[in-house]
Order: sequence, then structure tokens, then C-alpha cells
Amino acid sequence: MDEFEKMQAGEWYCCLDPALDTRRLRVFDAVHAHNATRPSARGNIAPELRAVLGTAPDTARIEGQFRCVYGVNIHLGDAAFLNVGCVILDSGRVEIGARSMLGPHVQIYCADHHRDPKLRSELIERALPVRIGQDVWIGGGAIILPGVTIGDGAIVGAGSVVTKDVAPGVTVVGNPARVVTPSRES
Amino acid sequence: MDEFEKMQAGEWYCCLDPALDTRRLRVFDAVHAHNATRPSARGNIAPELRAVLGTAPDTARIEGQFRCVYGVNIHLGDAAFLNVGCVILDSGRVEIGARSMLGPHVQIYCADHHRDPKLRSELIERALPVRIGQDVWIGGGAIILPGVTIGDGAIVGAGSVVTKDVAPGVTVVGNPARVVTPSRES
Amino acid sequence: MDEFEKMQAGEWYCCLDPALDTRRLRVFDAVHAHNATRPSARGNIAPELRAVLGTAPDTARIEGQFRCVYGVNIHLGDAAFLNVGCVILDSGRVEIGARSMLGPHVQIYCADHHRDPKLRSELIERALPVRIGQDVWIGGGAIILPGVTIGDGAIVGAGSVVTKDVAPGVTVVGNPARVVTPSRES
Repeated sequence: MDEFEKMQAGEWYCCLDPALDTRRLRVFDAVHAHNATRPSARGNIAPELRAVLGTAPDTARIEGQFRCVYGVNIHLGDAAFLNVGCVILDSGRVEIGARSMLGPHVQIYCADHHRDPKLRSELIERALPVRIGQDVWIGGGAIILPGVTIGDGAIVGAGSVVTKDVAPGVTVVGNPARVVTPSRES
Repeated sequence: MDEFEKMQAGEWYCCLDPALDTRRLRVFDAVHAHNATRPSARGNIAPELRAVLGTAPDTARIEGQFRCVYGVNIHLGDAAFLNVGCVILDSGRVEIGARSMLGPHVQIYCADHHRDPKLRSELIERALPVRIGQDVWIGGGAIILPGVTIGDGAIVGAGSVVTKDVAPGVTVVGNPARVVTPSRES
Repeated sequence: MDEFEKMQAGEWYCCLDPALDTRRLRVFDAVHAHNATRPSARGNIAPELRAVLGTAPDTARIEGQFRCVYGVNIHLGDAAFLNVGCVILDSGRVEIGARSMLGPHVQIYCADHHRDPKLRSELIERALPVRIGQDVWIGGGAIILPGVTIGDGAIVGAGSVVTKDVAPGVTVVGNPARVVTPSRES
């Protein structure tokens, strides 16, 4: 397996790899084109960015100063909305369900660096997927950590740091995020 | 009442509205012009952005990668200063008093989405005003939630999430923000 | 001493100073050039930005939407890496050691405004240095406050607000950041 294949399989891989560099630089240029285009001339997602995303329906919308790393791992549902300054470190698969809304500066991180400083400094890392259901509202500035799943209809308060799964329909807030409203179903 | 009038009146309104879209896109282009201009060629606020703001004295200053949504609801006092990356979701009225300083990446949100996932997915939301007094210092990365008033001379610590009013002269820190220094007046 | 010399000496100074303004505007233009250049055409650090930084080895890398204020106070080690949207208010000396990694939107603030609202509104401030050791991992969205030293090999969790020194090899998380893993040496 090459480093990209190890990354996609969720195994430890070395980020310092010429083939990965080439992939990333191509995506960074596409993201740059999206961010540099005047909003009225860009549409919901600039064509350059759309071309590198895994799944991006016409109704999905990404505002400016967006950032992702590989693109191909990002899968957006219908009318998913990412407000300004969202960052997705998509070394793992990232699903954002239909009609879910990410506020400004929401951060989704799949990249998990090694805890051993020596291996970490050799850029040994692995990727954990992030799954966000349908009709989710993630408040601005919230951070979603690697491996987290957020259920349908959940609400994540602004500025929360989400370290573990969020059940459908519940509201979480804080750093680390904790449940403040029980599920509507319960 | 049309959707804009409902928004301005603080009532629930539907964000998915062609007239609101037209307003927003015009402002996004103005903001983009401000952000894309070389700082030495821009002045305190680029003319395109100044033209869409509610109140913006010559001495008020907004750094780059700023973002607002309607512009017309933002009222800045003399020498108000917004450092880089500030985001104001100004569906409601936002006042920032004279000489108040917002650190980098400060977020002010007026937009309150509906708690019912079905209505929320139809983009039913309402706007609550945010009022920041004079001589306030808001540390970088702080988030100010809808409806909050911050009194004159108050200090908001970096990275705080402000969920309720802050009295004049006090210091608040944390997520959620809590008072750490009693008022100078008390 | 002029205001720049007071700033560099760690004394209270007035930020509202024409000579400081000239310095800052030159750096803001350099940062703007870095951010506005297509990543594949920019290299690890755009030449305009490299020219204003204190120390920036060829192997150090700064992603886009970076921001600093004076540049000259920033000293990067070999292969130091700053992901997108990092902000360094470098009125004081900022050292980032070899192979240390800053996640997206990490904020480093040296600028300490006066606690007296009247002096603060006259832009009286002082600068405290920030020192980040080697092989440090600072998670995305973390905020490092003035005067903080972070030891070699430490980990700062995403979204943490670091208000005091972090010993080598430990992990801190939260707002304010607290130790969650004892030092490997202990």
C-alpha cells in the first residue's frame, strides 16, 4: 500500500510523501480559486473546488475562506451549508448530511497525529472519519474532533469542542461539549 | 411584511428568500472587495464595504478577512477597531461603541435558528441584537451570542463564549463566560 | 526610547504611533501578498512574507490566511508548520521550535492591553513573549496567551485556551487549558 492507500484505510501513514504533496497542492489551488472569486461570480461552489470534492450536489453551498486538504473525502448532502472560514482536514471520510448547517469558522478535523513526539515529528498520522447527519446545526467556531459522529437533528453550540459522538436530536455545548437538552425522542 | 421587514422587527422569518439573497450577495461582494484589497491601498475600511455599513466613522477600522451579511445593521463608534477575521452575522442590529477593540477572529452572531429541526431545515430563523458599549476589549477568538449586551469598559477574555449580558467594567472569561473581576464601580 | 523600542523592551507603549503604523502597514502588505498567491506558485512561504520575518528557514511552512503584525519578532525552527488561518500578534518575541505543528486557526497573542479602560482606549499596551519548544503539537483553534512558554514535545488540545506555561511532554486541553497527561519524564 502507498501512503494514500494507508490513509484511506485508516492506518498510520507518513504525511511527508511526494504523492500526497502533489494531491494536496492541487486541492489547495482549487480552494484558493474558490476563495479568491467574487461571490456573485462564483455560484454555490466554484467549479474548481467542485471538481475536487467527493460529493457536492448543486444545492450544497460553501462560503469563502473555506479550506480542505484532499477534497475527495468530503461528501455533502442536498442543501448542506458551510458558512465562511470552515476548515475540513479531510484525510478521513467526512459526511455532512442534507440540510445541515455549519456556522462560520467551524472546524472538522480527521487528522490524528501520533502521540509519540518522535514519530509525530516524522509526520506519522492517521485519519478517523467524521459523520454529521441530516438537519444538524453546528454553531460557529465549533470544533469537531477525529472519529466523531453527530446524529440527525442535533445542535452543537457555538464554540463547542466535540470530542465524542452526539446522539440524534440532542443539544451539546461547551469545551468539551456536554449534553444540555435530552433527545426529543426520549 | 416581507422577510426583510420581519427580520428587522425581530420576528421569525424565512432566510430562503430571493430578496434577502440579493441583499446578501451585494454585501458579500462588498466584503470581498475589502478583503481582496492590499491594506496600504484600502484605508481603514474599503469604500465598497463602507458603502454598505449602517454607521462607519472615518476613524473606525476593520482589518481583512472580515465578514458581515447585511451590513446595514452594523453601527460602529469612533475609533472602533475590528482585527483580522472578525465575523458579524448582522441579521439583527449590532452596535460597537467608540474605542472598543475586537481581537482577531471575534465572532458576533445575531442569527438564531429554530430549535425544531423541521422548521430549521426550512431556514426559519430570527435575529436578536448585540450591543457592545464603549471602551470594551473583546479578546481574540471570543464568540458573542444573539441578544447579548456588553457594558462600557468591560473585558471579554480571549476564546470566551458570551451567552448572557456583561455588566460595565467587569471581566468575563471561559466557555460559557463567567465574571472573574467585579465591577470597578462596585 | 521610541515606541518601538519600548515595545521591544516589554515596557508599556502607545500603539497609536506613526512609526509603528508604517512598520505594520508594510508587514500587512507582505502578509496580504502571501495570502493572495496561489499555493502552487508560492512555495513554503512567499518571498514578500519571508523578507519581513525574523527567522524563517527554507523548511518552515506557513499556509494561507496567515496574519502577523511586525514579523521581525517571529522566529521559526526547521520544519515548523503553521496551518491555515494562524494569527500571531507578535508585538513580543515569538519562538516556534523545530518540527512544531500549529493546527488551523491557532492564535498566538503577545499583545496585552491595559486593564484601565481609559489607558486602554489610548492604546497603551505591552508585549509579552511566547515560546513554543520543539516537536510541539498545537491543535487547531487553540489560543496561546501573552507570556506563555510551551515545553518540547507538549500537546495542546484543539480549541484550548492556554493561560499559563505548559511543561515539556505534557498534554493540556480545555478553556482554560489544564494538564490531562503527566509528563513522559515523570
